Parts: sequence; structure tokens; C-alpha cells
Amino acid sequence: MSQKKHTPPDIPPMKDLTIENITDNVHSINSKCSDGRLKFLLERLVNHLHDFARETRLSIAEWETAIKFLVDVGDISSDVRHEFVLLSDVLGLSLLVDAIDHPKLKNSTEGTVLGPFHTTDAHTVSNGHQISNDPDGEPLLAICTIKDTNGDPIPDVAVDVWETDSKGFYDVQYAGRTTPDGRAIVRSDQDGIIYFNAIVPVPYPIPNDGPVGKLLERLNRHCYRPSHMHFMFKKEGYDRLITALYLRGDPYETSDAVFGVKESLIIDLAKVGDVDGLAEKYGVSPETRLLRYDFVLITEQESQGAREEDAWKEARRQNCNLKVVNGMLIPE
Amino acid sequence: MSQKKHTPPDIPPMKDLTIENITDNVHSINSKCSDGRLKFLLERLVNHLHDFARETRLSIAEWETAIKFLVDVGDISSDVRHEFVLLSDVLGLSLLVDAIDHPKLKNSTEGTVLGPFHTTDAHTVSNGHQISNDPDGEPLLAICTIKDTNGDPIPDVAVDVWETDSKGFYDVQYAGRTTPDGRAIVRSDQDGIIYFNAIVPVPYPIPNDGPVGKLLERLNRHCYRPSHMHFMFKKEGYDRLITALYLRGDPYETSDAVFGVKESLIIDLAKVGDVDGLAEKYGVSPETRLLRYDFVLITEQESQGAREEDAWKEARRQNCNLKVVNGMLIPE
Repeated sequence: MSQKKHTPPDIPPMKDLTIENITDNVHSINSKCSDGRLKFLLERLVNHLHDFARETRLSIAEWETAIKFLVDVGDISSDVRHEFVLLSDVLGLSLLVDAIDHPKLKNSTEGTVLGPFHTTDAHTVSNGHQISNDPDGEPLLAICTIKDTNGDPIPDVAVDVWETDSKGFYDVQYAGRTTPDGRAIVRSDQDGIIYFNAIVPVPYPIPNDGPVGKLLERLNRHCYRPSHMHFMFKKEGYDRLITALYLRGDPYETSDAVFGVKESLIIDLAKVGDVDGLAEKYGVSPETRLLRYDFVLITEQESQGAREEDAWKEARRQNCNLKVVNGMLIPE
Repeated sequence: MSQKKHTPPDIPPMKDLTIENITDNVHSINSKCSDGRLKFLLERLVNHLHDFARETRLSIAEWETAIKFLVDVGDISSDVRHEFVLLSDVLGLSLLVDAIDHPKLKNSTEGTVLGPFHTTDAHTVSNGHQISNDPDGEPLLAICTIKDTNGDPIPDVAVDVWETDSKGFYDVQYAGRTTPDGRAIVRSDQDGIIYFNAIVPVPYPIPNDGPVGKLLERLNRHCYRPSHMHFMFKKEGYDRLITALYLRGDPYETSDAVFGVKESLIIDLAKVGDVDGLAEKYGVSPETRLLRYDFVLITEQESQGAREEDAWKEARRQNCNLKVVNGMLIPE
């Protein structure tokens, strides 16, 4: 027999596991982890997972359903179908984590969910570019400023913009996609301004032919997102901002399937013709809809400071020997 | 434009989501679910998920790592590789759910984890069959009784037995598998007895080449299970029992990677030659190791009664308007 020789491992012994002591036994076997943050995350995860099962008296049949659900979510996932992200979105977790990690400061722009349709292959274009080539879309001119919390313009910010076509589908949802459409990276000019031509956003269903769609159905939830346009702002020294702008009056404004809407991100569209000289200046029809918004970014330093402060607040709230290291909570 | 007409959905409005109010908003949008149990499960799941994120101040980078981990778990999963079950096992959830759903009564045999290697294609064999064909295994004769809680034998129970080969691998872990080996379904005779020839179980690593294995490594945990043999008992009218027997003195007896060991399931192996006449009766060498165990099954009625009682206990403990329907907790 070619069995390897086994020596008893040096970990706290356990045995005779019960509903009551299983949690402490899992903590005990995880206690040799040398990464304090990972150990803390696992400890809290196991606490909540076990409390969930105990509180609900989860049955084996339900556990099997949950396992099958996760397998199904994995099965449909691919490079262009992020079903686990979608699951996190419809449970409100994505919005929550963004809010925790990107504290809002003073007059800064709020963040919101990234969603499952961002790609990394968008082309970088100049101001004035046409980012959507859907002839059925209602033309829109977007003119935005990007400033810091002191009101000074920030030049050279890479602004990732993405939206659906007029039918409510992102380019990646079409099988024959060869090149990005409805998305681009625009760089702000010396005055912190970006402008581009796009189409008026429309409401659309999140992908509902998979397990997450089936879950929403079982919950009697609709799967629509209100009309919106995504924005992501990146510049060294500034906190990366992922956000979106929503159109006021959308039928799904107060019931977004992925919990992305915030009051400060809801906008009214004007018409280019409402502002004297704008149609000529930007070379578009006066009937073109006009999106204006002033984005305010915070610096990494401001963001880090606010995170530290919030983390210490949470440590004090829990009152159980937590400390903050690099903005992260860990046990002392 | 061929957009569908949208009418505002009839659900409680939300907006302006914050770290503090996101949880109530998710409950609110889930409140239309007509399945009381599902609604309850989702409500508690969302509470724990959100509390976990708030308490740990989960970062976006950590959330991304978790999403990638789940995608990886999905990727490696297949009909013969149950990585989500394995994940549940190493977090102690599987043992916990089994303990909740299969209350132990009086002198009945305790259950333990199913593990990821049970299959549904084992052949049904007669008493006395050789279930393992590994020539390198140490021969073992198993003689077990199956009785009810009154001590009366239960005939005609389908007993699913499975174990690894002498190298610690299940048949399904070999690429060229054409027929089940190291597993069989044995039926108890009129005296509630099963006996079969097998090999002495050996300790073995759970599959550690996937994301769950990597997690154990990060946690400084070993991935071994102590030597054991799996059993599953099925007969109409009786609570299905999933359990296993463990060999006393195994190096991993007190640190099972999947938390399966219970004191009442640990056995000492004798030798067939220790009992007069046994070698002749069963036609095996006196040197053959001998496994004896008396299993006690509870009826479905006993099991259902105990579950109801435990569920009411939990309802009273939480003291928040829960009731028990068909053994399941749901809000009143």
C-alpha cells in the first residue's frame, strides 16, 4: 500500500459536532490563518451563514435547491454574462458595498452600481464623438463638467460611458458583436469638460433568462431598470467613481431591479434648442435632447480619510476589540 | 422605435438608497412574494448578507475577489465534481443543516455529511457481496444490524454504502471509470442484517486542486478527511439517514476538513478471527478486519414530530411572530 504517512495536525481538536457548537468549531479550525483580515471575514461569514441556517431552520431540500441555484448561476456565467454580479445586484449587496467603500463627501457625486455590462474594450474618443450608432435612438447631446470638491475643473479624466441601444440591449448582448457600440472612453479637456453625442436612455430588463431572472419571478419582482446612462471616472490621485444618471419620471424610477437610483443622480433632459447658440456650437439639431451634469470627484486622500473615519466609527459601534489597519477592520 | 409601453409597477417606492436603508428597501421590493417560506428565507438571507458587509466594511476589491471565487467554483463544477457542496462542507454548513433537519432521537443513529462523492448509479447487490475490487485494500468484513427505536429489526432497507480505494480516491475521481466500484446498495434481510466485503477505509484529501482547496490553503487548513465509510439508509416510512462510520485513532479524527466526525460514529475494528466461527460462517480469512455496528433508524413520523417541536422552540426563542407550518418556520 502506498499510503502517505499521516501525523496528527497541530490544530485545536474538535468532535461531536452539534447545532450549537459547530460555529465555534469552524472558527477553531480556521484560527491558524495568518491573514488577519481574511480570518476576520471568514469568522463573520461563518457566523452569519450558520445563524441564517439556525434561525430559518433551513431544510436539506432547501439547501439542495440553493446549491443547485448556485451551480446554475455558474453554468450561465461567461466573460460577457456576469450572473453572480447580477445576483449581488438584485440582493442590494452591490449598492451597499459601493456605498461602504466610496463614502460620499460634502458636495461630491454619489456612486451607484457598476452593473454587469461594463467592458474593458471601449475605444478612447475625442470630445464631440458619436458614441451610439443606433439609427432608431433619440439623439442626445451630453455636456458635463468634472470638478474637484473645491470647484476646480479636473482635466484629463478618463470617463468611461456606456448605455443600451434604443431596444434596451447593450452591444455585448448581441451574438454578432465585432466592435464596441454605445460605449466609449472620453477624456475631459483643460476646463474639465466632456461632451459627446449619444441616444436618450430607455428602460430595459436585466437578463432574465437565467437563474437570477427565475428568482425574481418567484419573488414577484419585475426585472426592469429605469432609463440611465453609466459613467466611470478614472484619474490618478482621485477616487475612482462609478455612477449613473437616471431620467426623472421613468416608470421604474422607484423600483429599480438592482437598487441603483439615488435622488442626486436623477436628471431632467432639456432640448439643445432651449439654450441660445448651443445647436450651432455643437453642430446638432435644436430638437436634440440635452443632458447636463456637473460631476464632483474626491481625491484618493479624501476618500481614504473618510473610509478610515467610517471604519473607526464601526469599530466603536461593535465595541469588541476591532482596530483599523489600512482602512480595513481587523481584530486587535 | 419599438419600445414596449411601461406602466409604473405596484410596489412600495424607494429611492436615495443608503448604507442604513438599503436592507429595508430590498425587503420592501421582495414583499410581493406570495410564497411565505421563500419570502422569509430571502428576508433573513438579505439581513445577514447586508450585516456581514456592514460589520466587516467589505471593500469593492474583496467583493470582486468573492465574485471571482464563486465564478471559479462554478467553472470547476460538473456532474462528478460538486465544488459548491464542498464549499458548504468546509464551512460547516452541510453538517449544520443535516443536524437541523434530522433531529437525533433517543438511541437513534446520528447523521453526518453526505459529501460530494455519492452517486446514484451504484448496483443493488445481495448480502455477502464484495463491494470493493481494489487488490491493494486491506480486506474488511462489515456486519451491521438495522433496528427501529424499539429495538425491532427493520428488513428490506436499501443501504447505500460507499468508500474510497486504498489510495484514498473514489471511483468517480478516475477518468476512465466505466462501472461503479467501492460502492453498492445492500438490502437488509428479515433480521435487519446487512453484511458485505469491503476494504479498510483510509484517510484522504478532499479535492484540493480547485478554488475550495485554494481557500483552505489560504486559511492554513489541511484538506484531509479521517478514514470512514459512508452509509445512506432508505425505506418507506423511515427518515432517510445519511451517516458514516469513522475509525478511532485516525490522525484526522479531531480535525476533519468537512466537520463530519461525531463521537457516536467512531468505531474500533476487530479481526474476524477474534469471534469464534465467524471466519467459517462468512468464508473469509481470520485476519480480515471486522466492522460491526448497530444502526437505529427513526420513522418519518418520529422525525416530523421532533422537527415540529424543534421549530416551535426556535419560534419561541426568536419571539417575533413566527409560526410553524409543515415543520417549517414562517412569519405569522
